[in-house]
Amino acid sequence: MIPKFEAGYEHLKVTALAGGVGGAKLLVGLDKVLQPGQLTAIVNTGDDFSHFGLHISPDLDSVCYALAGLADPMHGWGRKDESWQVLEELRRIGAPDWFALGDRDLAWHLERQRLLSEGKSLTEATAHFCEIFGIQSRVLPMCDEPAPTLIKTKEGEWLGFQDYFVRLRCQPEIAEIALLGNKEISTSELVIQALKDADLIVLAPSNPWVSIDPILALEGVESILQEKTVISVSPIIQGSALKGPAAKMFSDLGIHPSSEAVRQHYEDFLDGFIFDDLDVKDAEKWQASAIINEACQTIMKTDEDKTALAKAVISLGARILQGR
Amino acid sequence: MIPKFEAGYEHLKVTALAGGVGGAKLLVGLDKVLQPGQLTAIVNTGDDFSHFGLHISPDLDSVCYALAGLADPMHGWGRKDESWQVLEELRRIGAPDWFALGDRDLAWHLERQRLLSEGKSLTEATAHFCEIFGIQSRVLPMCDEPAPTLIKTKEGEWLGFQDYFVRLRCQPEIAEIALLGNKEISTSELVIQALKDADLIVLAPSNPWVSIDPILALEGVESILQEKTVISVSPIIQGSALKGPAAKMFSDLGIHPSSEAVRQHYEDFLDGFIFDDLDVKDAEKWQASAIINEACQTIMKTDEDKTALAKAVISLGARILQGR
Repeated sequence: MIPKFEAGYEHLKVTALAGGVGGAKLLVGLDKVLQPGQLTAIVNTGDDFSHFGLHISPDLDSVCYALAGLADPMHGWGRKDESWQVLEELRRIGAPDWFALGDRDLAWHLERQRLLSEGKSLTEATAHFCEIFGIQSRVLPMCDEPAPTLIKTKEGEWLGFQDYFVRLRCQPEIAEIALLGNKEISTSELVIQALKDADLIVLAPSNPWVSIDPILALEGVESILQEKTVISVSPIIQGSALKGPAAKMFSDLGIHPSSEAVRQHYEDFLDGFIFDDLDVKDAEKWQASAIINEACQTIMKTDEDKTALAKAVISLGARILQGR
Repeated sequence: MIPKFEAGYEHLKVTALAGGVGGAKLLVGLDKVLQPGQLTAIVNTGDDFSHFGLHISPDLDSVCYALAGLADPMHGWGRKDESWQVLEELRRIGAPDWFALGDRDLAWHLERQRLLSEGKSLTEATAHFCEIFGIQSRVLPMCDEPAPTLIKTKEGEWLGFQDYFVRLRCQPEIAEIALLGNKEISTSELVIQALKDADLIVLAPSNPWVSIDPILALEGVESILQEKTVISVSPIIQGSALKGPAAKMFSDLGIHPSSEAVRQHYEDFLDGFIFDDLDVKDAEKWQASAIINEACQTIMKTDEDKTALAKAVISLGARILQGR
């Protein structure tokens, strides 16, 4: 049973770790339910890459466009009311078109690249975007350095994430995932502070392997989580992911994809776990643990779905916090 | 009297030095009059700069778009049949809009930046453009390194050329022009070869100070010109430039702007000089010199004007070559 959402949470500080589409949806719900200043989103940048000399940050843009109300609801990436003049010309001149940038989307990419070229950090450029588009919550890239997620295929080839994800449409079987380009990378002071200041840390329903794990792999992050109240929302429902290769990644890596597998993935520091109503029957067979499970509708089609899930997350978090 | 253009020039190798708009027009004429392989254009890159992280090469693009038949005849820069979706969005988000990049123009800028990011040279990227758009003549940037033309104002401030030219609309009075960023810069082997192989070297009707001089300032260029038959077409008519700040630059630097001043500017290596019919009366008062003067219509409004001027240039060149 999900406790009803009640007032009295306006001092709760929530920091959410998120990847792209699914994560962005829950962030929209949290952003609507919480007051300005309550929510900080820490967003995966392991998928970032350089294309046409421009810094591309797919998850950060999905999150920012969603929070700004600019996201294309059809694709789950890019902007709504988009035009494609530049992409059409790129096709005409035989330039690579596998990563589709719309004209409006491209304008922001140009402006961000200008800011980065001037020595601004990705964190600062993101703050500038939030200011332009009136986003009330704070959005932080997980770090300012390049921290590429690399995919090793069963054929032994190393791929950049977008190569795997967009160009090769997740076809290759995965043998290994290397986070942060196999380097030790620190996050920013702002990220560390947002984690330390949080009453509640939420792992959004994003891909555990390539959206959340890169953030967890940053120096110092996981040790803070172990001291905090952490809730995760399963991106896996009935053994599948609504979008993206999360389920296939579990399988490729020899793990049966399920909500329980997600819970186990995070069990070192998890306090609460929200999974979909559709998995209630399966949950009866899960191993006992101190993690508090909660079933609810996690599929977010409408804004009401997003706020309902956000309320469920906060309510469960508040309940756990009260119980401490 | 201009000799009639006659066949028999199909083995003449012509290398033309050019800047943007005016230079591009004569190049179009030469390109139409000559056979594939006869013409090489060496184009000023002193105006190049970086904008939104993209390499911008205004003269090179004016020349390439003109030769490809894609140039906007209204502005003299950018592409015809252009759309402005990206620029409109840049304005909406408060990004700098002083350098106008249309959507189609931007596609080529992105593709060029991709090639440069992959380690291709500006020369190679330009060759790729010529191939895509079926340009029969060869276009070479004057060099592959950054070689910025810097403008010192009478207030003592140093400006990048586009800052002076586009953002400040040539308002500041010029105290000094520093070519090649005040460094010694070599050009490419291809440029040296195109100069050495040329039967005839043409200085297009481009700004002497900031379009032609940067090319002449490259190591080894001027010494080759001294051995060659060199013809210049005056960009100054009746003391004014048709476009751009050439006349104002002469004045700022204390020289009365005139066709004769252009001829004097190049007199160390010039063999023939073409100036406009409108200046014939003035020419009677010019100092005597070994340079062969030729008056004709140099204003190029139509393609016929361009080919007529190109024929005049080649005829004069052939006449000088025959006389040697």
